[in-house]
Amino acid sequence: MKKLVNDPEDVVDEMLDGLVAERPDALRRVPDSNIIVREDAPVENKVAVTSGGGSGHEPAFAGYIGEGFLDGAASGEVFTSPTPDMFETLVESVDAGAGVVVIINNYEGDIMNLETAVEMIEMETDTAIETVIVDDDVAVEDSEYTTGRRGVAGATFALKVAGAKAAEGADLETVAETTRAAIDRIGTMSMALTPCVTPEKGEPTFTLGDDEMEIGIGLHGEPGVERTEIASADEITDRLVDGVLEDLDPSGEVATIVNGTGGTPLMELYVVNRRLQERLDDAGLDHWDALVGEYMTSLDMCGCSVTVMDVNEEFKRLLSAPADSPGMTVPE
Amino acid sequence: MKKLVNDPEDVVDEMLDGLVAERPDALRRVPDSNIIVREDAPVENKVAVTSGGGSGHEPAFAGYIGEGFLDGAASGEVFTSPTPDMFETLVESVDAGAGVVVIINNYEGDIMNLETAVEMIEMETDTAIETVIVDDDVAVEDSEYTTGRRGVAGATFALKVAGAKAAEGADLETVAETTRAAIDRIGTMSMALTPCVTPEKGEPTFTLGDDEMEIGIGLHGEPGVERTEIASADEITDRLVDGVLEDLDPSGEVATIVNGTGGTPLMELYVVNRRLQERLDDAGLDHWDALVGEYMTSLDMCGCSVTVMDVNEEFKRLLSAPADSPGMTVPE
Repeated sequence: MKKLVNDPEDVVDEMLDGLVAERPDALRRVPDSNIIVREDAPVENKVAVTSGGGSGHEPAFAGYIGEGFLDGAASGEVFTSPTPDMFETLVESVDAGAGVVVIINNYEGDIMNLETAVEMIEMETDTAIETVIVDDDVAVEDSEYTTGRRGVAGATFALKVAGAKAAEGADLETVAETTRAAIDRIGTMSMALTPCVTPEKGEPTFTLGDDEMEIGIGLHGEPGVERTEIASADEITDRLVDGVLEDLDPSGEVATIVNGTGGTPLMELYVVNRRLQERLDDAGLDHWDALVGEYMTSLDMCGCSVTVMDVNEEFKRLLSAPADSPGMTVPE
Repeated sequence: MKKLVNDPEDVVDEMLDGLVAERPDALRRVPDSNIIVREDAPVENKVAVTSGGGSGHEPAFAGYIGEGFLDGAASGEVFTSPTPDMFETLVESVDAGAGVVVIINNYEGDIMNLETAVEMIEMETDTAIETVIVDDDVAVEDSEYTTGRRGVAGATFALKVAGAKAAEGADLETVAETTRAAIDRIGTMSMALTPCVTPEKGEPTFTLGDDEMEIGIGLHGEPGVERTEIASADEITDRLVDGVLEDLDPSGEVATIVNGTGGTPLMELYVVNRRLQERLDDAGLDHWDALVGEYMTSLDMCGCSVTVMDVNEEFKRLLSAPADSPGMTVPE
């Protein structure tokens, strides 16, 4: 296994220390936990916006903590849901009395553990909680680990919308409802050229032949819709764009993400973005904003995903509102 | 070859279109060229700051174009110097009358082609030019393609300093001198776990055994100081930090970059950053700022580099001045 790690059992712990060490004035680790929060949490007079999930998807989720974005995040072991205790610690650490929104991707383990945590918090405290589930993956309905659609890279837009809405001073229910409305307007489809290798196992999570790729793959290598011979960047992009546009059917302005899955050079993501923007032109859509980079990865997997969000005036305002986090900075 | 490309001969052309498509309001491609400039170039009453080099190092160099940063960049073919014609077009496209700084990494081909371009421009026009050479790689003196030290990821700091100094209104000579003074305070050392595969050849540029890594490697896979058995992330980081600190001998506050070489997951870069910041603490150095991510890559190479810059009040002001580019955004 060729990885920059020490003992694989320590990789999440050490990664989180390395993340806080990047921004010690902005981030802080809750003692004896894998919870990272804003250094100034809980932030007075503001709904707290949080997320969580397995590690291995960096910069998601803890990398989106900062002003105008997340107040905190729970990082489970690699590709493993945070425990109920972790969600409880997360909520306790950020609640300033205005309530907490917890936004997670749609995976059964994450949802089960979050529901357990919410029950405990509601029994033991008077903290108000809203949970929001991201299910932007248009590739498959029901899958390994998931009932319904999976949550994938489009969660980045959902988290940004929630962080900006809370920063504007909206109340708990409004932040949650706005985020849910955003998710309804987001579609993503992913593909992989290579599998990923987890630090603990040191082996690929699945196999792909030298000439094969998988279309519609999930964030942890869950099966997609087709395993086929590798094609050109334009053909691959077309498959992803067709899948998203058929499902989402956007009508006006759109924001897009070409997301790298961890091992993909930026050069290749730009080649994909070129074709994506051509296709949007052809479809008569106005590309209001385009992101290209690594937003939600799968360890060292080579591949990409294409996300489209059908934006309106409110979502344009929220997506372009200032935010400052390790994973994404939006200037004033 | 598993890459998101179309015809490998078109990869730079298509990548540049994809980059402009990410920010069509901020970037523009000079017709019939691989030159990208600020959309509003030439910018009146400002020294123009430019860079260039082979492609395959994204986001360097064209990804650093934007307000407070570069005015333009020339992108050669993959791992190939821009031609003299390209440097000429670059300079002509950004000069507003206050002169142009061209900052390149120390590779013989780049320097020869830039010198030829400067001679032509000086014969044919009255544009004032200053050239600045980045040579931050502490690993080796003289190497394949290079006389003296190579320029590597520390160039990111040099370009940021130059862009900010020009944005402040400094004159041509001052921008160049300030950038040279910055370069004297920057040291970098790199390593690779795997080689990189160029799109045209479709094969690794060199070979490394399953248990091997190379310490001190160059941006194009040029030999380093040692090929050895793979070690832990902490041991690897120590080798890089030792090399940089012995050479640079910083005394007070430092800014650092943990740079991924293209195929390395962000998780692993954070593990390296944790150890780097520990080592700075042990050395009694104050970590003023720390960057972790992909700043100067080598296609899909897995590995990293560690950069340290010995900052003073002026460099802190310039590095933290606002900038907005695809590859790096510094908020106000």
